[in-house]
Amino acid sequence: ATNLLAAHALDDLVSSPWGWQCEFGRCVKKEIAHQEGLSTLNTCKLTCGSSGALWPIPSQVKIEDQLSLFLPNNIDFQFNCPNEVVNLMNEAGDIFKDNILRYHPEYSDGHVPWTGPWDASTESHILYVNGLVTGDAVSLNLNTDESYQLNVTTSDDFTTATIVAASFFGARHALETLSQLIEYHETSDALMVVAAQIEDSPVFPYRGILLDTSRNFVSVATLERTLDAMGASKLNTLHWHITDTHSFPLVLESLPNMAAYGAYSSRQVYTFKQVVDLKEYARVRGVRLLPELDAPAHVGNGWQWGHEAGLGDLAVCVNQEPWQEYCVEPPCGQLNLANPSMYHVLGQLYVELVKLFSPLDMFHFGGDEVNMHCWNASKEISDWMIENDFGVDEEAYFKQWAVFQQRARELFLEATGEEEIQGVLFTSGLTAAENLENYVNSSQYIIQIWTAKDDPVIKDVLTRGYKVIFSNYDAWYLDCGMGAWVGEGNNWCSPYKGWQTVYDNSPYDIAYSLTGSQHTDLILGGEATLWTEQADDATIDSKLWPRSAALAERLWSNPASGWYAAETPFVNHRQRLVKRGIQAERLQPEWCHQNEGLCYL
Amino acid sequence: ATNLLAAHALDDLVSSPWGWQCEFGRCVKKEIAHQEGLSTLNTCKLTCGSSGALWPIPSQVKIEDQLSLFLPNNIDFQFNCPNEVVNLMNEAGDIFKDNILRYHPEYSDGHVPWTGPWDASTESHILYVNGLVTGDAVSLNLNTDESYQLNVTTSDDFTTATIVAASFFGARHALETLSQLIEYHETSDALMVVAAQIEDSPVFPYRGILLDTSRNFVSVATLERTLDAMGASKLNTLHWHITDTHSFPLVLESLPNMAAYGAYSSRQVYTFKQVVDLKEYARVRGVRLLPELDAPAHVGNGWQWGHEAGLGDLAVCVNQEPWQEYCVEPPCGQLNLANPSMYHVLGQLYVELVKLFSPLDMFHFGGDEVNMHCWNASKEISDWMIENDFGVDEEAYFKQWAVFQQRARELFLEATGEEEIQGVLFTSGLTAAENLENYVNSSQYIIQIWTAKDDPVIKDVLTRGYKVIFSNYDAWYLDCGMGAWVGEGNNWCSPYKGWQTVYDNSPYDIAYSLTGSQHTDLILGGEATLWTEQADDATIDSKLWPRSAALAERLWSNPASGWYAAETPFVNHRQRLVKRGIQAERLQPEWCHQNEGLCYL
Repeated sequence: ATNLLAAHALDDLVSSPWGWQCEFGRCVKKEIAHQEGLSTLNTCKLTCGSSGALWPIPSQVKIEDQLSLFLPNNIDFQFNCPNEVVNLMNEAGDIFKDNILRYHPEYSDGHVPWTGPWDASTESHILYVNGLVTGDAVSLNLNTDESYQLNVTTSDDFTTATIVAASFFGARHALETLSQLIEYHETSDALMVVAAQIEDSPVFPYRGILLDTSRNFVSVATLERTLDAMGASKLNTLHWHITDTHSFPLVLESLPNMAAYGAYSSRQVYTFKQVVDLKEYARVRGVRLLPELDAPAHVGNGWQWGHEAGLGDLAVCVNQEPWQEYCVEPPCGQLNLANPSMYHVLGQLYVELVKLFSPLDMFHFGGDEVNMHCWNASKEISDWMIENDFGVDEEAYFKQWAVFQQRARELFLEATGEEEIQGVLFTSGLTAAENLENYVNSSQYIIQIWTAKDDPVIKDVLTRGYKVIFSNYDAWYLDCGMGAWVGEGNNWCSPYKGWQTVYDNSPYDIAYSLTGSQHTDLILGGEATLWTEQADDATIDSKLWPRSAALAERLWSNPASGWYAAETPFVNHRQRLVKRGIQAERLQPEWCHQNEGLCYL
Repeated sequence: ATNLLAAHALDDLVSSPWGWQCEFGRCVKKEIAHQEGLSTLNTCKLTCGSSGALWPIPSQVKIEDQLSLFLPNNIDFQFNCPNEVVNLMNEAGDIFKDNILRYHPEYSDGHVPWTGPWDASTESHILYVNGLVTGDAVSLNLNTDESYQLNVTTSDDFTTATIVAASFFGARHALETLSQLIEYHETSDALMVVAAQIEDSPVFPYRGILLDTSRNFVSVATLERTLDAMGASKLNTLHWHITDTHSFPLVLESLPNMAAYGAYSSRQVYTFKQVVDLKEYARVRGVRLLPELDAPAHVGNGWQWGHEAGLGDLAVCVNQEPWQEYCVEPPCGQLNLANPSMYHVLGQLYVELVKLFSPLDMFHFGGDEVNMHCWNASKEISDWMIENDFGVDEEAYFKQWAVFQQRARELFLEATGEEEIQGVLFTSGLTAAENLENYVNSSQYIIQIWTAKDDPVIKDVLTRGYKVIFSNYDAWYLDCGMGAWVGEGNNWCSPYKGWQTVYDNSPYDIAYSLTGSQHTDLILGGEATLWTEQADDATIDSKLWPRSAALAERLWSNPASGWYAAETPFVNHRQRLVKRGIQAERLQPEWCHQNEGLCYL
């Protein structure tokens, strides 16, 4: 977005008559000729309002009225931390530096044309970043202490940013916050940092995004951008819905046929090395990967090789027509319950997944949208049901689904070497009140609520003591609102969920309205979901962002106020994401960004 | 989207078991082990169905069953054309070459790693492109003959593509079509071309996109990508809504204050050189720029310097609050009818615009959404109305609006040196039945219909003999369906208009249903509009594309069949746009693209 020629062409003709002033917490655009002491827009954004440009809002924050100018090569890191986290802190420091370089309007691919000239105090000003990390945790789980303290004090000669955190994960959040206390100063061609005192910790331990890489393939570059933006918004879990009926993009050395049959092409795959690198890429940004292998439904393409390999049909109804009879969307497919070889393959898949994604404290088993007719229409399965005296009514199939789930969990634990992990299951017939306690053990599974916020299942699971993650589709499904992809009109969960809806969706409030209790002990958090029937590299950024950042503030800060109070810093955070290379959706005219509070209804 | 390592990692393990076969006009995915003679997906797409991968569908087309492999450096152009168009043809040839290079899956920024090895016949095969252009037109207008003939015959040694066109504009369409008869051949690492005979011409002479660069700034790079995609879809008019109340991004040498006061920043502007270059960039892609300077409403920011320059207030109600009383969306502003200096500035603006955009056969005056209360609330204007005995009722203001419009047109004609141009006006109170014939001369103005397809105004203008351009918002407003940007909920023209709605919106059918006649003589065409309150560089591609290409087929081919028949080539055209660097929205899972016709309802 550099436009140097244009900038100079206008500056040569006439300089801007505008400046900004903070009035009652709002940046107001005024004419320089009529008002003294106006600041640049960035300066005003950084300092105006109770939390300046910070997103999500910290638990406690005080922005001071002191700004210093400095240059990006005058940053001095001093980290005092356990050996285990030294490398992580150094990498987080590099990310911090890269992020603030991107504030320069002419930043392009790592190249920043800082030109100056600067006055002596700007040129010699040092930003000291002193980090004290007391814990040695190198992986993130539901008990990780992500809190931090950040104090930024500034004087004529130097600025000191002091970070104290119990874990690397808290410390990297502090660095992110520090980067949001910094902006580019237009008229000085330098960075500026504002003094502040901050104590901060998240309300919810699980703050995630679900990204589906099966309906459409998602490149590693897009996954990395997603992780960049998650780090910028203090989200901590990328729930990777790796596979589905549509495709199987994961290359597994011991099961190469899964991707050979299941990938859209040999270019649309993830290698072992890519996944392991991505796990590390995530970690240094404070994010853990939560892999999902959805089963026993939402499988199909990738599983067709069993017959030729002498293992029989591993899945049934694969790509079967008419699809409406066998599944919720084309193409169909479910695992073949009657084929013991299916379990051998599943077990081996888990071995591979554990290898890729360890250390794992959670694993997502999927478990949604099983179609009983698909199973019953398979002669192999219905014969097997009858032979074993299971029967072939719906209840019988639910029972076998539960048996499958139990076996799947056992296989997964075998793969981990019996290390305990928490399973996650989507709400489904299996989690309905009549089945829940029979088939789903609350010490083994977390329930992910994907139905609407008024669905009685939420009460069913909470009052029975199940831990939950919210992704209710009426607020947190980011794929809604496009045109239909089967038939015409708009897609099933239309309308589009605006950021206001995303922001105002409060798990505690939902729980309270249904049960009379906020169930703070059971609600682990939530996630924005991007199912990719209608998204790929071209638009994943703009569907996820900035709306996932609205979710991020809901889950980090759980603000008492609604979207209206958050609008100005939220729009500013969107601008920051764009500076960092994220193609986030534009929410409003730039005029609203420059005239805070005036785009109201 | 290159992923070489991944590709090799999978290929090393196991090769793809899939191939494609054309059955009843559909590409069907089959297992190589079970079926001989399968082709690659690209091969099938190029040859299957009555018009292969062409978009929009040509008037007459016959795809032959002959394919040849060739390499991109073996293309030989021979253009026989008037001197005036030699350079244009050469540039169109370069664009053609660049487009087909992009078909390589590892294409990146001009670098294409063709590696071979190729067999001798592939390596020596020549693609001769022989173009005969009989006319010397170098600019596009409503009478331009855009028709072309294209014959592609192929033999073992060479392929000949013969183009005959009456104008450069027809010839460049032929090159675009030829590029759509070419694809990358996966297993040969070469290009392939399919033989075909085509005669083609558009149904409508005006096939456009409206892009608003005022609500949010749009970079030149994004404008260029938009023009690339327009060329790829045979759209011919970029209606550039340059300015609005929000901002004035155009740097004008004689009126530098317009951008100084009105641009969002000195970086968010267009210079003289950029505009002139863009006009040329458009031309070689078969597109003309239609500039709009909306007036007398939709002005404001950029016009505030009059008072300080001793010219009085050039506009009134600028950024006035509460905005709901003075305009349809924040911020407000309208030209000051009572100030003669306003006309001096307007006339000078037109002089600058004519200089930038000549040759012009059309100019868009805007003319929408005038708020009478804004004018009447200005003491200067209401005093002036009373002093001149005009009165201050609504009728009086309509009359003065019409006087304004007449004066504006005269000023524009002065700027062109009295060269006749057709004005365009949006439907408004001025074009309502009771005002239309009093205030709008059908020989001077074309009416752009932006209201819904059942609006009686359509009948009013057509039965009175006005020429029209359609952009009815219930189908062709591409900004609809997002979250609201003032208040909450969804934006005003929600829901989102899916491509099916865009495609099926037929101006002739609308006219027929309202008037009993298709009015083919009056309907010049239509345009997709992208108002940018909620779009900027990050998402303009995905909002415009591929939906604008659905409009393109409607206006080029006016197909008798609806969206269902067009789905497969449309989805393929989207993939082509992505290959050409356009971040077009994904419509369906890749599975649907690879399994044609199976994502139905």
